Amino acid sequence: MYSKIIIRYGEIGVKSRDTRRKFESILRNNIKLALKRYNIKGNVKILHRRVLLELDCDNLDRAISILKKVPGVVSFSPSVECSLDMEEIEKTAMEVFLRKVKEVGERTVTFRVKTQRVKKNFSLTSVEINRYIGESILKNFQKNKPEDITLKVDLKNPQITLGIEIIDRVYIFTEVFRGVGGLPVNSQGNVLVLLSDGIDSPVAGFLMMKRGCGTVFLHLKISDEGLEKVKRIYEVLRDYDPTSKLIIFDYKEVLQSIRKSLEEIGKEKYTCIICKRIMLKIAQEYARRFNCEGITTGDSIGQVASQTLRNIYVISEGISYPIFRPLIGLDKVEIMDIAKKIGTYNISTSRDIKCFAVSKHPVTRGKIEEVRELEKYVLNRIGTIKPYLHL
Amino acid sequence: MYSKIIIRYGEIGVKSRDTRRKFESILRNNIKLALKRYNIKGNVKILHRRVLLELDCDNLDRAISILKKVPGVVSFSPSVECSLDMEEIEKTAMEVFLRKVKEVGERTVTFRVKTQRVKKNFSLTSVEINRYIGESILKNFQKNKPEDITLKVDLKNPQITLGIEIIDRVYIFTEVFRGVGGLPVNSQGNVLVLLSDGIDSPVAGFLMMKRGCGTVFLHLKISDEGLEKVKRIYEVLRDYDPTSKLIIFDYKEVLQSIRKSLEEIGKEKYTCIICKRIMLKIAQEYARRFNCEGITTGDSIGQVASQTLRNIYVISEGISYPIFRPLIGLDKVEIMDIAKKIGTYNISTSRDIKCFAVSKHPVTRGKIEEVRELEKYVLNRIGTIKPYLHL
Repeated sequence: MYSKIIIRYGEIGVKSRDTRRKFESILRNNIKLALKRYNIKGNVKILHRRVLLELDCDNLDRAISILKKVPGVVSFSPSVECSLDMEEIEKTAMEVFLRKVKEVGERTVTFRVKTQRVKKNFSLTSVEINRYIGESILKNFQKNKPEDITLKVDLKNPQITLGIEIIDRVYIFTEVFRGVGGLPVNSQGNVLVLLSDGIDSPVAGFLMMKRGCGTVFLHLKISDEGLEKVKRIYEVLRDYDPTSKLIIFDYKEVLQSIRKSLEEIGKEKYTCIICKRIMLKIAQEYARRFNCEGITTGDSIGQVASQTLRNIYVISEGISYPIFRPLIGLDKVEIMDIAKKIGTYNISTSRDIKCFAVSKHPVTRGKIEEVRELEKYVLNRIGTIKPYLHL
Repeated sequence: MYSKIIIRYGEIGVKSRDTRRKFESILRNNIKLALKRYNIKGNVKILHRRVLLELDCDNLDRAISILKKVPGVVSFSPSVECSLDMEEIEKTAMEVFLRKVKEVGERTVTFRVKTQRVKKNFSLTSVEINRYIGESILKNFQKNKPEDITLKVDLKNPQITLGIEIIDRVYIFTEVFRGVGGLPVNSQGNVLVLLSDGIDSPVAGFLMMKRGCGTVFLHLKISDEGLEKVKRIYEVLRDYDPTSKLIIFDYKEVLQSIRKSLEEIGKEKYTCIICKRIMLKIAQEYARRFNCEGITTGDSIGQVASQTLRNIYVISEGISYPIFRPLIGLDKVEIMDIAKKIGTYNISTSRDIKCFAVSKHPVTRGKIEEVRELEKYVLNRIGTIKPYLHL
């Protein structure tokens, strides 16, 4: 038997007709790819202001968890489909309703009917349909009275809300699942995301995905343990966009050279600043190659001593690509909440990996001229980073 | 009679002792300034991991609305203070509890006691105090039985939670109000915020305040109606930071010249891009003068046709200050929710003011070289913007 899931989007709906069509088609494609990643066969159709997923009943639960992670999906409902014929709607509504009453399993059940005419092609108004189907349920339920259950209408806070959506056909449901919201991935340009094994950068990457960006993740590897965590984090993030990429750049020796060069001249307290400047330069190189239109970082303000506005300035100076910092206005608890919700928090916190190069007393107010000089010195000492990377 | 409000902070608590002391003192000062703005006299003390506000009873309600808007305050509770003496705690707890029971006004009242030893200087543990005070309340309540109310303990979801915080003295309360959270304003550096009369930029400014930044708002005025709205928005934002500044820059003639110059050469579709580039250049000038370490904008992705990643790149190219875009990872509904919560939404949406210069078909993928040339041409045509602004 086949299941149908009716899928709702949000912001796409306020776009011009052409943009909406384009975005609908991207969303449809993303849903297909997400299902394919878990080997689930399904048919995805674009309806009027809705997307419809048809799939084998056995795969329903898995499809639900997958759809919860597709950016652009605001909500969705497994539904029973019928024609616009009022008698058929009545019959189907009763069927769907009885199934849910059984599930609730209580003696007194409160309910309401909530109709939406997504396409205004129906003779009755939503309110008229609500009343008609509500009365029909009350009447026919009384006739059978399964197991002496008492039925009451409650418009405010019912146990069961029977949803009816009228498009070219009719979709009837009792569940509404929330999606991620936002825009479909790849409806906007690409961004390069600097990805570490910590809590912040995966959240930053997710937020850019949610806004429709394609993502190229770049991990600057300094340890095998860190890489292991990053790979697990990336697998979680891929649920939100199976087309995203991960690039590993072996950064350990570079960082060792940075630290050593600065130590020799007694400037090790500049290690973090110079390291991050060089990271951004490498990121910019990859952004160029992978056709990205910005660099995303997990920067926030005031979390640690070196995360000052001044240091953000000194670190990002000289980068011509825009730097997106989606966490800049968020509290640490808010960032952690998102990390938990998207499923990266437990991986990020599973094992604390300290950077070997961090100096005890990092500079909090770096001076731009001195930093430029130090970077020049360090880059000269290192020579070219990888044969193909001329920074 | 005097009221006492015990105030809790969040992130400040995880800082090193020196930083914590510094931030506590900034928070204390900010609370004083916020009260002063509304002519409320009060005494603000720093306790161990808490701040205490003492003020006249008559001002309690106004103080509550003010504290809800002070960044860095996570929560607070109007409290009755007593000594560490157990008998006095018992007596005071009963007093506070009875007052709340009256307020609830139901026949069956559920409650629990929740103690926190903020300073671990007390002989009993939190659990022991909870039990002792809980039993005492049950026993003494039964004696009097005011108006036949039945009392029950409910540890999970009670109607009344009697809070006890033990510091150098004891604070007993039944209400916990939520604050804004984040860090105290002016604990971080300053940012310049481009402020318009729309929904987004006030939210962006608020989020930077919430992260502890000092703010200098810059409005590029193109109409009196717009300025009127901006002034009202600014008054709302000042509740979160009475020390923030607003600068008005008369931009109308500049924009007229931009539009005219571009029209003459048939490039009016570049108006928005060139306008925004010049806005950022003016912002950068003011950022420098007002000792800011970054520019904040309400940029988000995909809201309107011209808000592409590519355009963000083309617009911000050539600006050496970091640009903070705290809304970049948020959905429009999320931005609107924050605007409603902070009180700017109704002002922003009260009257839609269209920009006179917007072209019908704005460029969505501006080319950097062409844009640079066009800007140079336009700036030459305009000459120097205001005598003191050399862009």
